[in-house]
Amino acid sequence: MAKPIWDTLTIVGVGLLGGSIGLAARQRGLVRRVVGWGRRAETLREALDLGVIDEADSSLTAALSSASLVVVCTPVAAVAEYVELALRAAPDDALVTDVGSTKAGIVAEVDRRLAQPADAQRRARFVASHPLAGSERAGVRFSSPDLFANRTVVMTPSGVEAPEHLDSVETLWRSLGSRVVRQTPSAHDQAVAAISHVPHLAASALAAATPMEWLELVATGWLDTTRVAAGDVELWRQILAANRLPVLESLDRYLAALHACRDALAQGDDLELVRWLQRGKQVRDAVGN
Amino acid sequence: MAKPIWDTLTIVGVGLLGGSIGLAARQRGLVRRVVGWGRRAETLREALDLGVIDEADSSLTAALSSASLVVVCTPVAAVAEYVELALRAAPDDALVTDVGSTKAGIVAEVDRRLAQPADAQRRARFVASHPLAGSERAGVRFSSPDLFANRTVVMTPSGVEAPEHLDSVETLWRSLGSRVVRQTPSAHDQAVAAISHVPHLAASALAAATPMEWLELVATGWLDTTRVAAGDVELWRQILAANRLPVLESLDRYLAALHACRDALAQGDDLELVRWLQRGKQVRDAVGN
Repeated sequence: MAKPIWDTLTIVGVGLLGGSIGLAARQRGLVRRVVGWGRRAETLREALDLGVIDEADSSLTAALSSASLVVVCTPVAAVAEYVELALRAAPDDALVTDVGSTKAGIVAEVDRRLAQPADAQRRARFVASHPLAGSERAGVRFSSPDLFANRTVVMTPSGVEAPEHLDSVETLWRSLGSRVVRQTPSAHDQAVAAISHVPHLAASALAAATPMEWLELVATGWLDTTRVAAGDVELWRQILAANRLPVLESLDRYLAALHACRDALAQGDDLELVRWLQRGKQVRDAVGN
Repeated sequence: MAKPIWDTLTIVGVGLLGGSIGLAARQRGLVRRVVGWGRRAETLREALDLGVIDEADSSLTAALSSASLVVVCTPVAAVAEYVELALRAAPDDALVTDVGSTKAGIVAEVDRRLAQPADAQRRARFVASHPLAGSERAGVRFSSPDLFANRTVVMTPSGVEAPEHLDSVETLWRSLGSRVVRQTPSAHDQAVAAISHVPHLAASALAAATPMEWLELVATGWLDTTRVAAGDVELWRQILAANRLPVLESLDRYLAALHACRDALAQGDDLELVRWLQRGKQVRDAVGN
């Protein structure tokens, strides 16, 4: 096994993502030990039982006190607050990152919380990131050491981070098997609105609009198209609220496409309908499975 | 192996569905031999090579002349015509069914084509059906003997079929591993509009509305939600055109749900947004994976 890159990895919020990071880091020998903190003692116990963390700490300050690397894995609305706490309570050389699904709001709030000149060194140790991995299943019990393998992680620096910290966070994600790209926080938020948040709304509304009496007939098409609608409601409310404007912009593009399909079908305009079906197939085929 | 139920199964149109029926029927010993007919010699040769049919016939009349059971597996726009041909060219005791994705139009057109009193016996030998199985992949090379296992097949009699023929077609699908339900053609069409055709439009429009430059970031959410958009464009044009009114009705229900989500998000009405997300999750969770 390779020599650990970090001594202590502290995971703030041990759910599906935090648990999978712990499992993967332990399995790949990236860290000497993994400490987990969370608000629910039951979840921490489960994380210990599953072997995703080595130690659980009910005190956040204690969990942070010996951290070399902190990954904040809470729901998005709480990320900036825990990032600030980590930057203040962890050792002066500790690196902090997160896994929040939206980035502009988190980065701006961290900047605001650490705007004083005296906090510049602290702020430089936070590198925002977003692994494009996840599942409609929530909870530490679904953790997998391979959750990040062959996935993309977007790092969204704001320009005040130390270059060596950017490289270290990139090393973390690459070591877990991911490909890393860097984008501005707002470019990231526009992209995920289109490729993640609007698909979630599309799936939720589609499931919600399906009369229950016909569910006995559903096959793979409906099952695939609506799969993400099973995701955690409160997590998704926070994500959508945190990315409101990019989601609205992208949702309006989707609604325009759907209305165009509707009009083509209503008017029997087969050429126009075929253009939309072809365009959809072309984009989908460009990606594969 | 069980004694064959039918002597000769003739498949009219050997694509994914026809090929899978041939493979499954051979593998399960339901028939003594499988004859395939199709317009493209190349496809028939491929079907022979893959072992999905025992014999290929370039003449439709010849392919039908010794049939005990005919399954019409052409695109929906051509089904009624081939059903009529099969009822006229196959032996007087041959049973005919189809796999078309829409039913009211096909059943009405078959009724119209065989409306003469002299054709009543013929018409009684056609039992319309729709296996809710398929794939975004088209073509005989994707045939699978398990395509119908644990799937649902809807039979849509119009009331003029002989009861023994209804039972025989039900036996066919059950023998391939499917569950069978009976519905009226129009009830079937309303249901599949909601659970198959509108999901297809939703997926196509979503893929079409996704800017290409962000495709490098897509993860399982987008991939699942848009999967069916890779389906064959011409097949889907025919399906949507054949089921226009039920699709429009169901699409309007979907658009209303999406607009409600949009308004809730735009107005910051988290309670309303959560209601939609919860409703979507509730319906999706009612089905499982």
